[in-house]
Amino acid sequence: MAEASSDSGEPALGFPVHEFEARVQRAQAAMMAAGMAGMLFTTEAEFRYFSGFRTLFWQSPTRPWFLFVPVDGKPVAVIPEIGAELMRRTWLDDIRTWPAPAPDDDGLSLLVDLLMPMAAAGAKIGLPKGHETSLRMPLGDWERLTRHLAGVVFCDCTAIVRDLRMVKSAREIDKIAHICAIASRGFAAAGDLFFEGQPLTESFRAFRRQCLAEGADDVPYLVGGAGPGGYRDIISPPADRPLQKGDILMLDTGATFDGYFCDFDRNFAIGAADDQAKRAYDVLYRATEAGLAVARPGATCCDLFAAMHAVIATFDPGTGEVGRLGHGLGMQLTEWPSHAPFDNTVLRENMVITLEPSLGYGDGMIMVHEENIVVGDGPPRLLSARAPRDLPIIG
Amino acid sequence: MAEASSDSGEPALGFPVHEFEARVQRAQAAMMAAGMAGMLFTTEAEFRYFSGFRTLFWQSPTRPWFLFVPVDGKPVAVIPEIGAELMRRTWLDDIRTWPAPAPDDDGLSLLVDLLMPMAAAGAKIGLPKGHETSLRMPLGDWERLTRHLAGVVFCDCTAIVRDLRMVKSAREIDKIAHICAIASRGFAAAGDLFFEGQPLTESFRAFRRQCLAEGADDVPYLVGGAGPGGYRDIISPPADRPLQKGDILMLDTGATFDGYFCDFDRNFAIGAADDQAKRAYDVLYRATEAGLAVARPGATCCDLFAAMHAVIATFDPGTGEVGRLGHGLGMQLTEWPSHAPFDNTVLRENMVITLEPSLGYGDGMIMVHEENIVVGDGPPRLLSARAPRDLPIIG
Repeated sequence: MAEASSDSGEPALGFPVHEFEARVQRAQAAMMAAGMAGMLFTTEAEFRYFSGFRTLFWQSPTRPWFLFVPVDGKPVAVIPEIGAELMRRTWLDDIRTWPAPAPDDDGLSLLVDLLMPMAAAGAKIGLPKGHETSLRMPLGDWERLTRHLAGVVFCDCTAIVRDLRMVKSAREIDKIAHICAIASRGFAAAGDLFFEGQPLTESFRAFRRQCLAEGADDVPYLVGGAGPGGYRDIISPPADRPLQKGDILMLDTGATFDGYFCDFDRNFAIGAADDQAKRAYDVLYRATEAGLAVARPGATCCDLFAAMHAVIATFDPGTGEVGRLGHGLGMQLTEWPSHAPFDNTVLRENMVITLEPSLGYGDGMIMVHEENIVVGDGPPRLLSARAPRDLPIIG
Repeated sequence: MAEASSDSGEPALGFPVHEFEARVQRAQAAMMAAGMAGMLFTTEAEFRYFSGFRTLFWQSPTRPWFLFVPVDGKPVAVIPEIGAELMRRTWLDDIRTWPAPAPDDDGLSLLVDLLMPMAAAGAKIGLPKGHETSLRMPLGDWERLTRHLAGVVFCDCTAIVRDLRMVKSAREIDKIAHICAIASRGFAAAGDLFFEGQPLTESFRAFRRQCLAEGADDVPYLVGGAGPGGYRDIISPPADRPLQKGDILMLDTGATFDGYFCDFDRNFAIGAADDQAKRAYDVLYRATEAGLAVARPGATCCDLFAAMHAVIATFDPGTGEVGRLGHGLGMQLTEWPSHAPFDNTVLRENMVITLEPSLGYGDGMIMVHEENIVVGDGPPRLLSARAPRDLPIIG
């Protein structure tokens, strides 16, 4: 029912400056409406979204990084000296650095210099305080900073960032489509990659290597499981146990290209599948179809949840509780919104989301399906190659 | 001068229960001395250290996770339902879950239930607030929690966690040694992997694939650069630019095995090297030797910095400022301590650290060397195979 994924070759790396300008302008209009003098960010995705600064160095917890997006003018970076050269290659002009790490003053003096004029005016400065956010700096430093800047009202700007980031640009969609196509080709090779007797740790390595060979920059997220008739958990690293005939194998992958993720899984039966697993698979396939039929501009995430849940409920009394049936996707493996009863987010064109129905069955087993789509003007565009209609038997 | 790395095959996954018991007992002795009723953790490394709970699911920012380590008794997990099955496989007994995500109450009621008796007593509860830490939960939820638990004194427990985690167990060292040996074999293949005309993006993919083939679970961290006569930045993702004769290529990798990192880099000249690059390499090789000569129990990180810096200062007037010349290593790519003038940490046996001298040269170029070692009773044990004495020319 939805179009097959198409991938028109490797997208150019990065984004043109006007795309960052447009993001900041939209943020500034929202800040103006909310009476904010600016927004302060400490987290990787927000840094990258507004500045284009991309590095894996965020994996080191040592140094804090600060980006201030004022209500007027370009963002200001307050960052460790080690990032200065890379930041100078972005569209930013005002880059202030210190020789971090410096536990006694890890950027705080520079931040106080920058924000003190606003503190004197009792300004409102936004920072993300809401769902799916966190503050990436030592809590002790945050307490000191807010004492120094006691005049500032630090308010929550999660809604502004969420609204901006949920709708993707054409270039963002191209990058996500590209990595989805790569991972789809990786899964298409499953029959060659996975076999009876293979330790699951090796299955995971083989899949990672295949995705890299297909053009992924990396496969930072790969979880899954395997067990007789089904798996019991969907966030595990692999065990040493060899795959056995009758196992249901699931791999759920977040591979990346140019800093954008895919996030979908596939299920396989090793050698043979029992009826229970086949039925679970069939229910989830149909639940995904129900989601695809509802994913239109104007529908809510809550509607999406209801449509998928109605199919699942015909089979599962409610044991496989994962809290939601899909989510947003982009620079992070999972992003706002959530397909859940609590989330009334209205779908808009160019939102990239996952449909991720799951169910519990048998004695504590769980099964998950997942596809990645773009909400369009009409039926959604599938970015992941649609899973096979029936549980594939391999090995 | 230091022993070559030895790797006695693939270590068993995970840890026996008594290792977690010993970690918690040491933490409890420190809490007792500090008058704390417990410690509250929200971050991956601390979760894993005390419970054994390991998953890549932390990459999803959606759900908060809480681990309470009381001054007496086993840790208590307050976690999203999606993690219950995996947590039940750890040594913990008290696992409290909620159907996250639930933005209106993402674990807060469960935390309040758990901690309210301590609030009534005005107890001190530690949480990491210091250098290299952060609070992984929405700041708004933290503000709500502290209002609910106004009786609790939330104090900083960074020093307790830091002291525990800096010294590694024999099993932890085995895992780090194993991944260091794997990445060393990956770098040993450089002459086959990297060549003139290869886009740097492809060099990175080739190295990742090689490390996976050698037995790495993953290569989550891989940064570097290449340029004529040298590179200018040490935290970049790769560009499309093809390698050219006369380039200096650097790859810095954090590969993982069973959740433990290596972190070291290697430099290569493509086809030819100019004298300036050769001299920079020689200085850094000798700076590392100076670090190896000083890395003994009783020396400080500050001493290590001074020994390496004294060699570097003969060459570099101080342009290549990265803030420190090495750090701890383990479950995170970088951990406490820092080899820097501010860090007076005394080296102890079984600390795993990097020696990472760097310098600036020419017109804005930088060079970095890095080795991974275990502090021993006597000379340190090299975990990374020592870099070649002279700048290797490949391609």
